[in-house]
Amino acid sequence: MINKLVADIKKKEAPIVVGLDPTLKFVPDYIKKSAFAEYGANLKGASEAIWEYNKGIVDAVYDLVPAVKPQIAMYEQFGVDGLVAFKRTVDYCKEKGLTVIGDVKRGDIGSTSEAYAVGHLSGVEIEGKKFYGFDEDFATVNPYLGSDGIKPFLKVCKEENKGIFILVKTSNPSSGEFQDRLIDGKPLYEHVAIKVNEWAEEVMGDDYSYVGCVVGATYPEMGAAMRKVMPKSYILVPGYGAQGGKGEDLKAFFNEDGLGAIVNSSRGIIAAYQQEKYSSFGERGYAEASRAAVLDMKEDLKNALRK
Amino acid sequence: MINKLVADIKKKEAPIVVGLDPTLKFVPDYIKKSAFAEYGANLKGASEAIWEYNKGIVDAVYDLVPAVKPQIAMYEQFGVDGLVAFKRTVDYCKEKGLTVIGDVKRGDIGSTSEAYAVGHLSGVEIEGKKFYGFDEDFATVNPYLGSDGIKPFLKVCKEENKGIFILVKTSNPSSGEFQDRLIDGKPLYEHVAIKVNEWAEEVMGDDYSYVGCVVGATYPEMGAAMRKVMPKSYILVPGYGAQGGKGEDLKAFFNEDGLGAIVNSSRGIIAAYQQEKYSSFGERGYAEASRAAVLDMKEDLKNALRK
Repeated sequence: MINKLVADIKKKEAPIVVGLDPTLKFVPDYIKKSAFAEYGANLKGASEAIWEYNKGIVDAVYDLVPAVKPQIAMYEQFGVDGLVAFKRTVDYCKEKGLTVIGDVKRGDIGSTSEAYAVGHLSGVEIEGKKFYGFDEDFATVNPYLGSDGIKPFLKVCKEENKGIFILVKTSNPSSGEFQDRLIDGKPLYEHVAIKVNEWAEEVMGDDYSYVGCVVGATYPEMGAAMRKVMPKSYILVPGYGAQGGKGEDLKAFFNEDGLGAIVNSSRGIIAAYQQEKYSSFGERGYAEASRAAVLDMKEDLKNALRK
Repeated sequence: MINKLVADIKKKEAPIVVGLDPTLKFVPDYIKKSAFAEYGANLKGASEAIWEYNKGIVDAVYDLVPAVKPQIAMYEQFGVDGLVAFKRTVDYCKEKGLTVIGDVKRGDIGSTSEAYAVGHLSGVEIEGKKFYGFDEDFATVNPYLGSDGIKPFLKVCKEENKGIFILVKTSNPSSGEFQDRLIDGKPLYEHVAIKVNEWAEEVMGDDYSYVGCVVGATYPEMGAAMRKVMPKSYILVPGYGAQGGKGEDLKAFFNEDGLGAIVNSSRGIIAAYQQEKYSSFGERGYAEASRAAVLDMKEDLKNALRK
């Protein structure tokens, strides 16, 4: 999948991933009304509304971007019904040729980590046949438990040609509480990055590894340093747009050839119609507003990388 | 819920949580055959088998223990159907008066962490009404992202009188890769423990906090130290039995009054019938074998704490 992702980034000239992180606040009223009328104003109705909303956005942007990143928490909050919407979204995006990064931030040990890897990137064996649970192309993974938590994912990545993005430095203000603490003169996140690079070398694609990492856009000074420590890993960069990151801050995350990083924007794209800038699209034009926001982001990144 | 948990630990004289971490290997053939015949040898059939298996164990042990801890990864591997089995298990255990600790190890930031907290410990608002997704009593949480990841859980804990157990030191061999690294002379896990104690003081129950922690049984020397750093936090101790921990290693995790810790055993209880010691129960007696294993564990802990 990393080879396909890199190829699609080149082809579409867009190192962009659309974060499909819906909340009911983002969903236009006309979609909610129709879903609630059909299924009730409950977990099922809300999940249907979210699926319809997602579908509209995917239809409007799938030709522009290589990948989407549904954040599973936003679906899990609606319980089992929400996870049905998550699965429908994953399947639909794959049908549309998009690479799907499941932002699940799972992390556990041994057989438990294996179960997460199997559930999200592979299939569970039942009477000798493999059945796929969620079947994303990539998953995000939390490193706090060390190699025992990561190795089951590496095994599955090799078997299925799928990938993971390991959290190195997150984009939130308090990420420094633990991640920035110095150990032997280097911050914890750099120690994690060194391990990520070791894991990355174990599972190489053509030019990049199936093992990528997450480094927040809110820390541009780290971009260049992290690129050096993990030269084979794609960096998934959250925090663009709503969280404060701008295109010009992101140059250091990329290699000279414009590859090596993919930038996520969630609400900046999916709720674009609620921003003043795109308000003329109105509620019914929410998907077209998302398309306009993607085009603007593409331009912003292109300009930043050209400099 | 922490008050109820402590009261039930006293009443049942059992600081024990049964880890409901099913895999198909543990499920007796007769249960699998019947579920596959009715629903097919697929994700749905497997999930039904797991639910039937869980129900048998819960029926056999609910009067002996205060709590269960379903590991969501083991359900998530069966996709949406598996999560239906997870939810049925949560609901059934609560009906039986058990405290349910959702071992979900979630951790994210801001609104995403809030979504996890809402999905697992509270309800999502739809048209002014609250709807509960998974609705466990406690959830386990990963601290790598810092306070931004924890605070949304604290808010929900206050509103719902529910609790969390934050990972401090896990029971796996490679947990030391990051958790044991020294920062200002103290291992990372101790820095996490210091923060856990701050968070714990914000959300107090009667004697203990709604904020507990996880410290693996495989590190008995840490028990006493961690008790001191986090005097108000219940310690959830995994790693008993199958992972190598024994009752006598666990004394240091407890206060003098025998409270302050709760010990998890998963496959040592739920797959007891597959051990030589309990093999006379046979497949059809798997639930009674689990009951016998709980009684033995209770005795082992009682002896260890008496010393």
